[in-house]
Amino acid sequence: MSDKVLVEVSARHVHVSEADLETLFGKGYKLTPKKELSQPGQYAAEEKVTVVGPRGEIKMSILGPTRKSTQVEVSYTDARTLGVQAPLRESGDTIKSAPVKLVGPEGEIELAEGVIVAKRHIHMLPTDAEKFGVTNGQIVGVKIETDGRSIVFGDTVVRVRDDFALAMHIDTDEANAAGISGTAQGEIIA
Amino acid sequence: MSDKVLVEVSARHVHVSEADLETLFGKGYKLTPKKELSQPGQYAAEEKVTVVGPRGEIKMSILGPTRKSTQVEVSYTDARTLGVQAPLRESGDTIKSAPVKLVGPEGEIELAEGVIVAKRHIHMLPTDAEKFGVTNGQIVGVKIETDGRSIVFGDTVVRVRDDFALAMHIDTDEANAAGISGTAQGEIIA
Repeated sequence: MSDKVLVEVSARHVHVSEADLETLFGKGYKLTPKKELSQPGQYAAEEKVTVVGPRGEIKMSILGPTRKSTQVEVSYTDARTLGVQAPLRESGDTIKSAPVKLVGPEGEIELAEGVIVAKRHIHMLPTDAEKFGVTNGQIVGVKIETDGRSIVFGDTVVRVRDDFALAMHIDTDEANAAGISGTAQGEIIA
Repeated sequence: MSDKVLVEVSARHVHVSEADLETLFGKGYKLTPKKELSQPGQYAAEEKVTVVGPRGEIKMSILGPTRKSTQVEVSYTDARTLGVQAPLRESGDTIKSAPVKLVGPEGEIELAEGVIVAKRHIHMLPTDAEKFGVTNGQIVGVKIETDGRSIVFGDTVVRVRDDFALAMHIDTDEANAAGISGTAQGEIIA
């Protein structure tokens, strides 16, 4: 196992519930996996939805499989484009987050809440956590050396689960601030 | 003097030469100061130009006074919107930077080079430099504590001049990555 953590850039995307998928794409509709992601079982789907805010709209990819609730993950830049006040949250924590409209080929949904800016985080297995000496929920810093925009991302949440793979996720604003295009390697620091 | 450094967010903007200002706005045209900036003598002007790239266009404010050469400072997000490959540079270092078209009310300019993403930097007076124990051109880190996106910006260039005022400048991607809206306070670290 390497001492470094793979850093991946997570662009804006939408997770949908089974019910919302049917509203947007039609009864009995199933997502079409297009590309596997680093987390086991997760994939980018062929399907896209248009996310419509009070100021602008952005077409976003759906990530599968379907989840318990629909969630839109954007950068602060995207939130500004849409015209929504998206709070900084961990994935799944969407209570009282920003409202938005989703438009699919077969229907629309007025989402009362669900738009968040994701807190940077590291997915890892229990064996990784043991190796790095960290625990689920712990806040760490991650140092990334790049050509001209080296950075230490503080406030990074460690998320440990049996079905995760070791990878840090940052959004596109964070990637730009670190001068990362593609992936990078990070070092967990105290 | 405080131990902290004021951190300001520098949104995309254009600096123009006297000659280019006349091409864009007409013979003998003078910029109209709208708002003073932290650096002595620098101001945001009323005038805007449309910056047109191969992929998209963005209307940007001109910062005055006029300079020796015309320069467009954007974030990586903006560069993507425009469709240009803007290099990471210090202000003024525009040789072989990205080309773009500028459109004003009275004329257009095909800029052969001039679009850059600004390296993060700290303006300071010689007395500040002495106090912080740094010198012109030195690369430092700057630690910024925020609510949920604390960060250390490495690769920050110290710029010392008699007509500067103490302020760090970051772009909008960097501000978003640190969760900063408005201004913040940073601490220079080794």
